[in-house]
Amino acid sequence: MRKLLSPIPQKRLLRYNTEMDQIKPRTLKGFRDFLPKEAKKRQYVIRQLAEVFESFGFEPLETPALEYEEILLGKYGGEGDKLMYRFKDRGGRKVAMRYDQTVPLARVVAQGLNELPIPFKRYQIQNVWRAENTQKGRYREFLQCDIDTVGSSSLLSDAEIIACAINAAKSLGFKNLAMNINDRDIFIGVETKWMVIIDKLPKIGKEAVKKELMKGMSEKDAKKILNDLMTGSLTPKLSKLFSYLESMGLKLGKDFKFDPTIVRGLDYYTSIIFELIDPNKPGFSLGGGGRYDNLIGVFANRNIPAVGFSFGFDRLIEAMEELKLFPDELSNNVLVTIFAESLLKKSQELTLILRRNRVNCELYLNENAPLEKQLKYADKKGISYVLIIGPKEIKENKVTIKNLKTGDQKTEAIEKILEEIKN
Amino acid sequence: MRKLLSPIPQKRLLRYNTEMDQIKPRTLKGFRDFLPKEAKKRQYVIRQLAEVFESFGFEPLETPALEYEEILLGKYGGEGDKLMYRFKDRGGRKVAMRYDQTVPLARVVAQGLNELPIPFKRYQIQNVWRAENTQKGRYREFLQCDIDTVGSSSLLSDAEIIACAINAAKSLGFKNLAMNINDRDIFIGVETKWMVIIDKLPKIGKEAVKKELMKGMSEKDAKKILNDLMTGSLTPKLSKLFSYLESMGLKLGKDFKFDPTIVRGLDYYTSIIFELIDPNKPGFSLGGGGRYDNLIGVFANRNIPAVGFSFGFDRLIEAMEELKLFPDELSNNVLVTIFAESLLKKSQELTLILRRNRVNCELYLNENAPLEKQLKYADKKGISYVLIIGPKEIKENKVTIKNLKTGDQKTEAIEKILEEIKN
Repeated sequence: MRKLLSPIPQKRLLRYNTEMDQIKPRTLKGFRDFLPKEAKKRQYVIRQLAEVFESFGFEPLETPALEYEEILLGKYGGEGDKLMYRFKDRGGRKVAMRYDQTVPLARVVAQGLNELPIPFKRYQIQNVWRAENTQKGRYREFLQCDIDTVGSSSLLSDAEIIACAINAAKSLGFKNLAMNINDRDIFIGVETKWMVIIDKLPKIGKEAVKKELMKGMSEKDAKKILNDLMTGSLTPKLSKLFSYLESMGLKLGKDFKFDPTIVRGLDYYTSIIFELIDPNKPGFSLGGGGRYDNLIGVFANRNIPAVGFSFGFDRLIEAMEELKLFPDELSNNVLVTIFAESLLKKSQELTLILRRNRVNCELYLNENAPLEKQLKYADKKGISYVLIIGPKEIKENKVTIKNLKTGDQKTEAIEKILEEIKN
Repeated sequence: MRKLLSPIPQKRLLRYNTEMDQIKPRTLKGFRDFLPKEAKKRQYVIRQLAEVFESFGFEPLETPALEYEEILLGKYGGEGDKLMYRFKDRGGRKVAMRYDQTVPLARVVAQGLNELPIPFKRYQIQNVWRAENTQKGRYREFLQCDIDTVGSSSLLSDAEIIACAINAAKSLGFKNLAMNINDRDIFIGVETKWMVIIDKLPKIGKEAVKKELMKGMSEKDAKKILNDLMTGSLTPKLSKLFSYLESMGLKLGKDFKFDPTIVRGLDYYTSIIFELIDPNKPGFSLGGGGRYDNLIGVFANRNIPAVGFSFGFDRLIEAMEELKLFPDELSNNVLVTIFAESLLKKSQELTLILRRNRVNCELYLNENAPLEKQLKYADKKGISYVLIIGPKEIKENKVTIKNLKTGDQKTEAIEKILEEIKN
């Protein structure tokens, strides 16, 4: 077979090298690579959240990254249309990239009205794309984590969404978060533009809000609005909701509280609204949601009630980082070194034993590297334990284990080693 | 607070309804929604694969959906450039959607040459987008599942990738898959255009391949190529690789075999190549890979060796469906019904107990629905167990459990119920 025809030209490599000389490896601004250390944290959070969502009977849904533009356009206000990634595909179709997960949900519900169980309880954890201003530290690709219950107008659904979100936050290790809850009925008669200003209360304070309100009304009216808010009392809906939440194992004043200043900017909310807040950091919301009975039915041409909650994924990660809520064992555990090429088989056998015992481990991928180089690799990768199996160890039927965090080293039987690693 | 200013206008709802009259809820062709039943299967597969990948020391990487067009363009041949989703963003930047995960990996490696541990072992499970011909049943958005080891030219890396892929397939329940392995050295002297034809051997057979070859060479040459192939023998590299695979616990002839007809279409492979095949379905590959030492260094302007494997995710799901490899418990377990609004609290308490015992369960979300309606919902959602707690049960301090798969119903103490559900 060899040399039968002409030799393989290396032209592909050559072509790459010529063309690539000018190309700087870089990402678009607002877009991020997640290297293993960060990616593992993200996966950990996603898995924890999904587990709690599923324990409440929410099920996963995935929708495409691209939709017909007409499906998304006009659903997020003028700002949304401006920030949406839109283009014509090769077939001349006007398409747009997923901007949130709620409008696609509305489309799915309209298409599946007869097949879907109602209420339809789904969670969705996918990226969305918005051409945000990156100078404000905003990302253009970010993960959304949503739970929504569609087709139930019972307050039980609102309570369940809130309980599920609080439990999810607890499962990540947060101890001080509380759901601040309000009822939009409190604002009946208040125009949206004032609500947007009132929404800034926790961030800019009462005086600044009053000033902003006074640009469009008398000082007396502004004072009255704010005073009414601060002294607002539970609506009948809120009283009922709170009793449901207590029956769901949550504590008023600790896990959730009434906050008449919560507005939630989006004007599609129609009733109960809520935000997950660290009481030590007012204004820093880790997620929010509420009831929105007018949006989901948009493609089905009928009213379909819905309530949902959305975690701010990047903020969750940030806050967990700050509070050191990530478990240690997210990093890889064990490197099995190769003492010499002639002993390679012994190291390979060791990896088999470890994996059979459910220990994640890797073999160093060079038969001829000095031990020092192998240890450096383990260190750079954040590996905790290095195992060495040389002639001495083989003779004694033992393995040497080096703990890279403490520097401790000892030679033991494999059973002891497994115990130590799994401690 | 009420009626202080003008009432909230319902204009948003009205606007939706007017605009939406014409909009048909639909997805772009080649794009798919994954409703819960399918989405759960996908998650199951992703988790199983990730677990095995991690047990071999591969770590997750995420890269953005959008890249500068120049990063991707020209890396996949003319066909690739044609099928790539490309557009100008609002800032006038030429951008392109992720077309595979290998070129982004090359970019990440070039940017991180000093920080990344080498070899860099990563797995990546993300969607890619290609404007494929949908009439051939191809998708335009599909998930890729890749493992790659970058920066090691040791055959140990090839062996590890193969062993990891086989173990991953086994973890999904496949019993008959084998990795068919070849060495491109066998083809030294054979032009790429002939290799592309030889690649069709398992699908179209020897005679058809001979005919296609004869369009460009004499019958004698075509016969010689095919004959040399069929009687090809192990190269020294393959012999060494196979001994490594055996030390990694794999069996020649069962888990892996030599197949001199494996070509792999992509001309970027430079050495060992392999495909994961069900021997009962020749030509139906569940994934493939090989060593490609020329691509990863493209942005770093140096040669960086690499070897990788990519699962055909949609095919995996299809094959698992056919072989019934999905576990039953992917469906949600338990619905707690509400006997009457006055007994709601009892049902809520029951959900708390279940979740504390790690049973996924949901409360029916209507305080006033007849039991029949609640059972129908459970049935539609594929729920296995329905729990009922009415006056009789409360009096006896028991719960009624109905198994929707068998129709069995009994009234028992909660401890027995938990046992039954967790069996």
